[in-house]
Amino acid sequence: MAIIIEFEPIGRRVEAEAGQTIMQLSQGLLDPETDGVIAPCGGKGVCGRCKVRLIEGELFPSNETEKRLLGEEYINQGYRLACQAVIAGPAKIEILPETLSKRQKLQLDGHVFGVVPEPAIKRHTISLKATTVDYPYSLWQQVELSLATKMEIAGLRMDTELIGCIDPLAGDGQVVITTRKGEIINAVRGTRYTGPVGFAVDLGTTKVAGYLVDLQTGEILAADGILNPQIAYGEDVISRLVFALDGEEQYNRIKQALREGLNRLLHNLCKSAAVNPENVEEVVVVGNTAMHHLILGLPVRQLARSPYVPAVTLPVEVKGRTWGVDMAPGGVVYLLPAVAGYVGGDHVAMILCSRIYEATGVTLGLDIGTNTEIVLARDGELISCSCASGPAFEGAHVQQGMRAIDGAICEVTYNGGQRLQYKTIGEKPPTGICGSGILDAVAELYRSGVVHGNGRLDNSHPCVRFNETRKVPEYVLVPSEESGTGKDIVVTQKDISEIQLAKAAIAAATKTLLAESGLKTEDIDRVIIAGAFGTHINLNSAVAIGMLPDLPLERYRQIGNAAGGGARMILLSETERFKAEKIARIIKYIELASNNNFSNLFLKQMGFPKLNA
Amino acid sequence: MAIIIEFEPIGRRVEAEAGQTIMQLSQGLLDPETDGVIAPCGGKGVCGRCKVRLIEGELFPSNETEKRLLGEEYINQGYRLACQAVIAGPAKIEILPETLSKRQKLQLDGHVFGVVPEPAIKRHTISLKATTVDYPYSLWQQVELSLATKMEIAGLRMDTELIGCIDPLAGDGQVVITTRKGEIINAVRGTRYTGPVGFAVDLGTTKVAGYLVDLQTGEILAADGILNPQIAYGEDVISRLVFALDGEEQYNRIKQALREGLNRLLHNLCKSAAVNPENVEEVVVVGNTAMHHLILGLPVRQLARSPYVPAVTLPVEVKGRTWGVDMAPGGVVYLLPAVAGYVGGDHVAMILCSRIYEATGVTLGLDIGTNTEIVLARDGELISCSCASGPAFEGAHVQQGMRAIDGAICEVTYNGGQRLQYKTIGEKPPTGICGSGILDAVAELYRSGVVHGNGRLDNSHPCVRFNETRKVPEYVLVPSEESGTGKDIVVTQKDISEIQLAKAAIAAATKTLLAESGLKTEDIDRVIIAGAFGTHINLNSAVAIGMLPDLPLERYRQIGNAAGGGARMILLSETERFKAEKIARIIKYIELASNNNFSNLFLKQMGFPKLNA
Repeated sequence: MAIIIEFEPIGRRVEAEAGQTIMQLSQGLLDPETDGVIAPCGGKGVCGRCKVRLIEGELFPSNETEKRLLGEEYINQGYRLACQAVIAGPAKIEILPETLSKRQKLQLDGHVFGVVPEPAIKRHTISLKATTVDYPYSLWQQVELSLATKMEIAGLRMDTELIGCIDPLAGDGQVVITTRKGEIINAVRGTRYTGPVGFAVDLGTTKVAGYLVDLQTGEILAADGILNPQIAYGEDVISRLVFALDGEEQYNRIKQALREGLNRLLHNLCKSAAVNPENVEEVVVVGNTAMHHLILGLPVRQLARSPYVPAVTLPVEVKGRTWGVDMAPGGVVYLLPAVAGYVGGDHVAMILCSRIYEATGVTLGLDIGTNTEIVLARDGELISCSCASGPAFEGAHVQQGMRAIDGAICEVTYNGGQRLQYKTIGEKPPTGICGSGILDAVAELYRSGVVHGNGRLDNSHPCVRFNETRKVPEYVLVPSEESGTGKDIVVTQKDISEIQLAKAAIAAATKTLLAESGLKTEDIDRVIIAGAFGTHINLNSAVAIGMLPDLPLERYRQIGNAAGGGARMILLSETERFKAEKIARIIKYIELASNNNFSNLFLKQMGFPKLNA
Repeated sequence: MAIIIEFEPIGRRVEAEAGQTIMQLSQGLLDPETDGVIAPCGGKGVCGRCKVRLIEGELFPSNETEKRLLGEEYINQGYRLACQAVIAGPAKIEILPETLSKRQKLQLDGHVFGVVPEPAIKRHTISLKATTVDYPYSLWQQVELSLATKMEIAGLRMDTELIGCIDPLAGDGQVVITTRKGEIINAVRGTRYTGPVGFAVDLGTTKVAGYLVDLQTGEILAADGILNPQIAYGEDVISRLVFALDGEEQYNRIKQALREGLNRLLHNLCKSAAVNPENVEEVVVVGNTAMHHLILGLPVRQLARSPYVPAVTLPVEVKGRTWGVDMAPGGVVYLLPAVAGYVGGDHVAMILCSRIYEATGVTLGLDIGTNTEIVLARDGELISCSCASGPAFEGAHVQQGMRAIDGAICEVTYNGGQRLQYKTIGEKPPTGICGSGILDAVAELYRSGVVHGNGRLDNSHPCVRFNETRKVPEYVLVPSEESGTGKDIVVTQKDISEIQLAKAAIAAATKTLLAESGLKTEDIDRVIIAGAFGTHINLNSAVAIGMLPDLPLERYRQIGNAAGGGARMILLSETERFKAEKIARIIKYIELASNNNFSNLFLKQMGFPKLNA
């Protein structure tokens, strides 16, 4: 019999059955436009992040996993882990602020360098006559006759589904016909014609950014971002691959979640821009290799184990209708190919958008995240690699880490006082620390001497204390009385180690690429920092801890979501698309896992560089 | 409750429910590889051809339609119409020989003029290495790397479904890759490779002829014909269109019947030629416009009413898997376009195969059937038309007409005696008259003076009698004692009228084309007669009754199934394919329905030409 479970603060009532976990319910609950429960480890009972609280009713008693991850104090206050807590009867459950996945502010302002619109789709306006005995031509015959006078018609094909979408005797009036690579893919009656439109998508593990683009002018008609709906099945790539590999039904579910999310995003953008979806004729998707494979339903087993190879690295095109995308009947989804298992089409799009490929001299490009992709370009020659930089920058694996949403500490500065200063997003009371905040905190703790060169916290500092439960020293950044959660916000020794691991990986990867090219740090003419996180970091902090090369700051440029920008360029111009495909083909990929140089450099980079005087 | 109905002579037992008609049961019964009940009028109770006999058990009493179409004598002997007779209880039903649809001998020997094999598909044999950390490339990445050294790789795409068909880590060994128009559509492990194969299909209203072709040599590996499985839903084009227009479910059923029939034919050919279906990479379909539309599921309403326009006249390509065709994962079905509602891709294929398009001088080409398509070519300029020549040539609308199967009278000659001489197919006792037989019979009756110039039977001839039931004179061709049915086989006045209508239409259409071109009959340098029926007719008879132009017989050539031959040429060579598409585009189509010249000529051509001395 169905049991009603009520979720607060979102006020959603869900039917459940005894024996289900709260996480299972929340997967059905999650909708990228509203809220749900995050599942960083994929509901495996590993991360302890999916905290919820029982307000009313009952659940089966907490198990060993919950006791270990939450501790007695939390358990006694009614806290549970959504992935472990099992429904016993009707209940009211609070999803905690830090557990609630919210719509995030996305970085949508990737620069687009002058691109001449020359999209893959071509439009032709055709005047129709009524079909009569004296003019015995159906609508499509008239289209064919008309196109024959305008273009090379030999080899022209029809999208079969499209033929049935329009009455062959539809008669008088105008129709706008779209051709794409020798195929007729759309027909819109003149009166419903709202101009050619495309949809560019940057498919991130966490975020999906979408841009509705006017294909004649390149103008962004609407843009928005949603959480990747797959987040309900695991926060990181590996959790999702593991989920997909659980079985065909699971793979299908996680695939559909992403396709439906993309479709919803498109739908909403069309609504807000007052665009009729049948005018959307092409979708361009760039994303990391796992997202690319998961949305296509490609084999992923080989992505989850060394040497992490993509199933395919050719561009792929599918009819949008096969994904259920509400667009032109014959409309196409184009996916920019990946380069390697951890270097995806988003990296290629970033290289395109930042014009690194066309730059003279030596350019270093980094897209920093859970995974950091790095490219080193010298006069059009490209070598790329990828390193696991840990999820610290996304706010995960940090004791009080959170994503860059309201209340997150995003900036930390040392003004010479005993305690560091901080700023929060939205100027809300602090509830945790986001990626740029933790980076600043570590850099400033080092600068102020609270952290030593080897990363150890100075136990003698008045703000440093030893946490008996976690058995690590920690620095109290925000005392409980200032905090939005009513508890201290701290930076722990483990947090600092996470940052050390991440920055060592990035620095070692950069140096490995330089070594492969026979170059030194000072040979780098410019450094391009792409991506949402990279845009928000304080470069001084990143250089101070040795994450980024010690170069004059004027050589740096933070360009925002270049992957999204690249997707728009590819949508807008076939020339740019061919260029991107060429970039994907010519990139020399360096696998760091088997690279001895990298391993050695990685250990050397764990400490912090000497402080400038 | 289910009632068991037994069908003889095929010995099939079928579960039925009271209230079903025998026709309804027989639709489920029909299988192109076995036998069933024909339904010329689509089960509308119009043609009276679906005769069956009750051997045992009971049916609801015969209705007015049956009484009218069968007559009291037949009714008393237990004869019923399958489309009208309603199941009342268990019964044993005989399907009469003339009602039983049998596998027919098809005309498969259309000549193929020297064609250099250059198919749309290209094969590449690639050697693979195992994927390791030191060689981190998946199977498809290796394919891409290898193809890049062999061909222009920019713009190359993958069939998405194909990627999942082969383990990305499949490792060592050889794989044969197929590309088609810039897309990888197939991959076959070296050991299973049996050479490139294609399937050419001539989709007729009655017959479906299929050819399995070696794409390297052009050799026919296997060929066979089946009855068009749609015949269960109506024998002629209009009945089928009417059935399809009855509703979505009906359309789907008639569409699926044809797709499944095509797939079965392919399957059987593969089996008999020991070809692995995954090696079949392209299917070429030519057929009349209605079959083209019905198999694709295109709108057909406009095909069933004046001015009978096709929905589309561009070539169409679909993935075989969308039709359920058991072939290469990314394999393609290519459909040659139609020219008009009654001039289909089969006509285009005939023009290609017969090389009419390339001939110098004036060539007349005819494909004679229920519908006759005629083309007049002058130095590469083509004008075509189509005329309803009646179903007489297919054995329908003739009192004792039947298809060209064993027992059919196929040849009739006048040797000066009182009675005409005849020959039957398979030298079996005569059971009816097929198309070539009735043509001969009329011509010889005219030559012998039994039929006058206006088509009237000479009532004074001893073999001519007045049939009181049907109220028409008839000529007894075979007396009951010689007949395989135990009854007289006759040629009725109405049969002669049918032939007159048919031949007048063909002759008038030919003259209309000549007039449009400003040519006279004697300007025709050659006449090409294509199609199964045309191959079997006696040209002397056809000329004698004025159906074909009175030209020296050495100007005539009977080339058999040129549509099937054209389909094979298109399969084998892209050059021929482009030529065929060009033929389809440049044909000037003359609509006879609104042509005054044709109407006048038609009336004039009803009588027979003066006999040569």
